[in-house]
Amino acid sequence: MSKALVGIIMGSQSDLRVMSDAASVLEELGVPFEVTIVSAHRTPHRMVDYAEKAIENGIKVIIAGAGGAAHLPGMVASLTTLPVIGVPVKSSNSIDGWDSVLSILQMPGGVPVATVALDGAKNAGILAAQIVGTFNEKVAENLKAYKTQMRKKVEDSVEELAAKGWKK
Amino acid sequence: MSKALVGIIMGSQSDLRVMSDAASVLEELGVPFEVTIVSAHRTPHRMVDYAEKAIENGIKVIIAGAGGAAHLPGMVASLTTLPVIGVPVKSSNSIDGWDSVLSILQMPGGVPVATVALDGAKNAGILAAQIVGTFNEKVAENLKAYKTQMRKKVEDSVEELAAKGWKK
Amino acid sequence: MSKALVGIIMGSQSDLRVMSDAASVLEELGVPFEVTIVSAHRTPHRMVDYAEKAIENGIKVIIAGAGGAAHLPGMVASLTTLPVIGVPVKSSNSIDGWDSVLSILQMPGGVPVATVALDGAKNAGILAAQIVGTFNEKVAENLKAYKTQMRKKVEDSVEELAAKGWKK
Amino acid sequence: MSKALVGIIMGSQSDLRVMSDAASVLEELGVPFEVTIVSAHRTPHRMVDYAEKAIENGIKVIIAGAGGAAHLPGMVASLTTLPVIGVPVKSSNSIDGWDSVLSILQMPGGVPVATVALDGAKNAGILAAQIVGTFNEKVAENLKAYKTQMRKKVEDSVEELAAKGWKK
Amino acid sequence: MSKALVGIIMGSQSDLRVMSDAASVLEELGVPFEVTIVSAHRTPHRMVDYAEKAIENGIKVIIAGAGGAAHLPGMVASLTTLPVIGVPVKSSNSIDGWDSVLSILQMPGGVPVATVALDGAKNAGILAAQIVGTFNEKVAENLKAYKTQMRKKVEDSVEELAAKGWKK
Amino acid sequence: MSKALVGIIMGSQSDLRVMSDAASVLEELGVPFEVTIVSAHRTPHRMVDYAEKAIENGIKVIIAGAGGAAHLPGMVASLTTLPVIGVPVKSSNSIDGWDSVLSILQMPGGVPVATVALDGAKNAGILAAQIVGTFNEKVAENLKAYKTQMRKKVEDSVEELAAKGWKK
Amino acid sequence: MSKALVGIIMGSQSDLRVMSDAASVLEELGVPFEVTIVSAHRTPHRMVDYAEKAIENGIKVIIAGAGGAAHLPGMVASLTTLPVIGVPVKSSNSIDGWDSVLSILQMPGGVPVATVALDGAKNAGILAAQIVGTFNEKVAENLKAYKTQMRKKVEDSVEELAAKGWKK
Amino acid sequence: MSKALVGIIMGSQSDLRVMSDAASVLEELGVPFEVTIVSAHRTPHRMVDYAEKAIENGIKVIIAGAGGAAHLPGMVASLTTLPVIGVPVKSSNSIDGWDSVLSILQMPGGVPVATVALDGAKNAGILAAQIVGTFNEKVAENLKAYKTQMRKKVEDSVEELAAKGWKK
Repeated sequence: MSKALVGIIMGSQSDLRVMSDAASVLEELGVPFEVTIVSAHRTPHRMVDYAEKAIENGIKVIIAGAGGAAHLPGMVASLTTLPVIGVPVKSSNSIDGWDSVLSILQMPGGVPVATVALDGAKNAGILAAQIVGTFNEKVAENLKAYKTQMRKKVEDSVEELAAKGWKK
Repeated sequence: MSKALVGIIMGSQSDLRVMSDAASVLEELGVPFEVTIVSAHRTPHRMVDYAEKAIENGIKVIIAGAGGAAHLPGMVASLTTLPVIGVPVKSSNSIDGWDSVLSILQMPGGVPVATVALDGAKNAGILAAQIVGTFNEKVAENLKAYKTQMRKKVEDSVEELAAKGWKK
Repeated sequence: MSKALVGIIMGSQSDLRVMSDAASVLEELGVPFEVTIVSAHRTPHRMVDYAEKAIENGIKVIIAGAGGAAHLPGMVASLTTLPVIGVPVKSSNSIDGWDSVLSILQMPGGVPVATVALDGAKNAGILAAQIVGTFNEKVAENLKAYKTQMRKKVEDSVEELAAKGWKK
Repeated sequence: MSKALVGIIMGSQSDLRVMSDAASVLEELGVPFEVTIVSAHRTPHRMVDYAEKAIENGIKVIIAGAGGAAHLPGMVASLTTLPVIGVPVKSSNSIDGWDSVLSILQMPGGVPVATVALDGAKNAGILAAQIVGTFNEKVAENLKAYKTQMRKKVEDSVEELAAKGWKK
Repeated sequence: MSKALVGIIMGSQSDLRVMSDAASVLEELGVPFEVTIVSAHRTPHRMVDYAEKAIENGIKVIIAGAGGAAHLPGMVASLTTLPVIGVPVKSSNSIDGWDSVLSILQMPGGVPVATVALDGAKNAGILAAQIVGTFNEKVAENLKAYKTQMRKKVEDSVEELAAKGWKK
Repeated sequence: MSKALVGIIMGSQSDLRVMSDAASVLEELGVPFEVTIVSAHRTPHRMVDYAEKAIENGIKVIIAGAGGAAHLPGMVASLTTLPVIGVPVKSSNSIDGWDSVLSILQMPGGVPVATVALDGAKNAGILAAQIVGTFNEKVAENLKAYKTQMRKKVEDSVEELAAKGWKK
Repeated sequence: MSKALVGIIMGSQSDLRVMSDAASVLEELGVPFEVTIVSAHRTPHRMVDYAEKAIENGIKVIIAGAGGAAHLPGMVASLTTLPVIGVPVKSSNSIDGWDSVLSILQMPGGVPVATVALDGAKNAGILAAQIVGTFNEKVAENLKAYKTQMRKKVEDSVEELAAKGWKK
Repeated sequence: MSKALVGIIMGSQSDLRVMSDAASVLEELGVPFEVTIVSAHRTPHRMVDYAEKAIENGIKVIIAGAGGAAHLPGMVASLTTLPVIGVPVKSSNSIDGWDSVLSILQMPGGVPVATVALDGAKNAGILAAQIVGTFNEKVAENLKAYKTQMRKKVEDSVEELAAKGWKK
């Protein structure tokens, strides 16, 4: 794979269950990426290093997933000027996901995090590809094909329902 | 101004009170933009046109703000492959902003919206600049200067507090 | 079956699990209907077509079900003057259903959606029949019989409890 | 005015502040209506009478508004087969409107209430008109004109913004 | 059993799973009671009859359980001057119980419902016994014994934990 | 005044603003009562004394109001077998009243608190009177008159609305 | 074990499932502790005794866990000047944990409870150790070693992920 | 003043309005402290420095206040083994304080933050004093006096109410 344009990081190995969706869709869309674990609360210096070296490492977008009082996306955003996409993870220590969502979304003025839906790692991957697509024509083309394919899947299900009837 | 790279749209004129923060910060960061009104529910065809022509009009990022059952950001995202940033607006017909936040954030797999905080138009502008900065060196430099300036303002307030004491 | 008076649409095939309750009760109440899949986010043009042609196709009421950031009912309502009934679906990507409920219920002034309870597709069907019953005497009679039957079922359970005792 | 087709009822005189929006828009759309006060908790027999006689009084749709533990819309729906539209009112004794919304929306299977947004009396009026429009061609025409007018107002605001600029 | 002093009613047979706890504890505390099904939405006239005849039937307290948009306790309270205890039931059609709780608790001024915890039928039974105990010495004594017994059970668990250790 | 049958207590003097409604309505209904301040967190021993001596002091019902993490009603209930009515107060240190409501309502099995609506002190007073009315015929009569009076006020407002019209 | 410095108490034996995490981590960190059951609602006098004798018994910190309307932590805090750590337990009678969290966290001015995350007994143990560590050098050292060990576990998972790849 | 034992930090100067309560009560309780501004998102390196040098600077407890997606308390806790008290501030960019509460409270296992009530800076100060009081006899005495004084204020208000009557 070419040099990573997207860095996918997550607070703990257990988040990989959710976050691998971001990797899968980036692979499908032809965007080179890297995946690693960076914990805001257990490895704060590793987090500072990762965020501050991301630009010189050629990274263009960072996807950060975390659960509960999820500080990773916001802290990474405080340490870089790259766009940071935050994925609220509904981890076992979360109150139905509300803590993850609010502690990623409600960033103060000056330090944005591009938040996606709870457990929405797939959409984080697509959003990262859309950002890469603003300057990479091939990825932009792949995104258009992806959209067409989504539409066709719905059209197939329309035909299947028409053929079988709603009672199945 | 040069050709707009960012399109700022909002559901109604009353949203300008919040959304003008996005325009201000883009101006400050040197990113050309355009501002207009596009209502998902009252001008659905205008919305389809705007979203589908954005790429050929040279737009790289769309910022869409709306309140209540806020459908504008998600519907625009369904009609383009550009990155779409959604700003939940705490409008008068909103239940404390929860409706605006959830109807923008919780997009289904395949159609991401980069959601920022409630009334977070300023951060939407900065995020748009960060996306432009992935391919525009000048904007990337401006973002670094902006971050430095934020840090300095805090440092000034540290000194002010030290000088005056906490009892003011 | 005669020409459909009610159009039942849903965002994805997986919603049929919930939405088939609307079809069942319309069948029971003698109201002709059609069922199909229309995704606001993956087939936006199909949605525009469906909504704008509904009146000339003889449809009198549209029932639209969707989950998460549920935009289908509200967007269809923006494209037709027919009454639109929205069914918030507690899909797998939903935060306990709150997102589905709020993004259907909290429509702005001018574009109503008649919202029913979370996963309340059965009630959506009955409501559609009640609307048809405002001009169709036979359906109005069927609704009265349906109400009587509900009352009788409760009365039967009263007798059963009296006979068996609360300890069962 | 001709014989009322829509009955607007509310739990207390103080709800008129919100509910008069339903009356205004019905007047604008040319739908005859009546307005009165019916309290589920303070005049339960009046409520039973009103609901049970509505059909013979020529009413086609009932709009019921109430706040807090709002039982009026659901109880009226239990007593008639007419479509009932519920308006959750954010009254002074409400917890930010959540109680009003949930006690109207979450009706059990068999007894639907067509719920609109919090304080959404205007939309309740339009929805009632849409129901009347399913059998009354004149009202259906008025609704189309109303939709066109909404679109034009947005288009006017687009031009005004273009002319004045976003800084006003 | 002597003549019932407490009437336990519930909206549907499926609520008996929760509501039988009220019956069990009343039996244990020596308070005569009756159990039946009364649906606000499916048998509104039966509800009016039950509530209005309760006093002449010798009932002193009514316990009413219901789920979702739970109108039974509040409507019964509107029809009698007896104390009414409401049990919010977390039924299958409930949004995590919030709808049941709020539509029972948030009654308007003038018509109280004594609300207990979600699925708190046992406490409803004890509260009914406490009310009976205000004029019935024997029941008041039973309540004191019940309280002592609760305390002793905790003291037993204290000893068990001390003996076995926290690692069990 | 005769010997108090109802004890009204509250966590702080500032709660009197809300809790005086309970006193007013008890006065109106002819139920003797006493009012004092008992803080669970600042005067825990006073709370124990008050609760444990209430029965011998002739009290039949205790009304306890508190805000925030409201422990007074539940702790009093743990110390007496009298019925305890809890009034959640929306105090300045409350999160929109949710903390007050939940820390009063959600009592564990064995120790009920009869919870009324947020700031619902008036209903607490009526509920206390209803409990007194189970053994005091005069109070029972007063409650019936009170209910009639409520109905008449609504009927007056019906006539006023009919006379003046909804446009006022 | 030496004399207990930390007292771990909980409202019921069933809370031990959660609360034993506090004991485990204190054992690991070399802080002597005791574990027992103290119910605010079923053994209020035992609670008063425990709290008031804690200082003379040599206790420096109290950890109190409870669910639902959780009054134990706050009441203990009202009876001692020791720091009290509250653990909201998601017990079976809780509304998704919100009641436990709010009735522990939202204490009035003057009586703090150091609240940790829902079911966060492990963190309660660490926090207690941190408090002991302010005057006990050995425990302070153990805490530093614990932090290092946490960091190393993350670093190990980083290497494992790098070795195996994200697809596992 | 002697060398600070407690460090009070906050994310922005505007938080001083709330956080000065912590300083006031520490002053009253005779605990030396320092106050400064440390922003997690705008001065992340200053935050790392502050937290990592706190122990060698003689600090025993850190009080950190922040609003919205409040990362300061948790990040400081990740960088020190001192006890950290978090104060959720209801800042202007907060959703009714829920974001502040959850992003401080819901810390992952291993990194506790002692969370106090929303805007509960006064309690944060008292809690810090209680921690200092575990090894400082003078502060422990001051806390006992403070508790006595709180009790006396309630007793005074009891007498005032008795003297003036509840109608004031």
